[in-house]
Amino acid sequence: MRVLIRPKAGILDPQGVAVERALPALGFDGAANVHVGRLVELDVEDSADLDAMCQKLLANPLVEDYEIQAIEGAHA
Amino acid sequence: MRVLIRPKAGILDPQGVAVERALPALGFDGAANVHVGRLVELDVEDSADLDAMCQKLLANPLVEDYEIQAIEGAHA
Repeated sequence: MRVLIRPKAGILDPQGVAVERALPALGFDGAANVHVGRLVELDVEDSADLDAMCQKLLANPLVEDYEIQAIEGAHA
Repeated sequence: MRVLIRPKAGILDPQGVAVERALPALGFDGAANVHVGRLVELDVEDSADLDAMCQKLLANPLVEDYEIQAIEGAHA
């Protein structure tokens, strides 16, 4: 399973700001809405546990949103 | 567009190890192969630039693999 963790909309995203500012200096123009979050991939026995795992450990639900995805071709 | 950045196979993934060790203490058994990486989401004018962006800024190609995905429903 895969968990995508992002800063909530409206929460400061300093890494995203830093990347967005750095790209033009490297010759890449036109990048916008850059957000940097975390990616967690893991095998679990019971994917129903994942929401609780996110709430308790993987994400900080006060300032982050998370999205749980099944990985195509993976067994769990 | 979305970029998933992961530690390369065989490269130390201390965050993944830490999460895998912490889960049983929180009552979640059976998690395995836990890997923690980064998630970058951004709008770009030319998605052909993304590979070079990853090589130069977003990922560290020495120790990280990256995967570029289009986000469904997004315009870029």
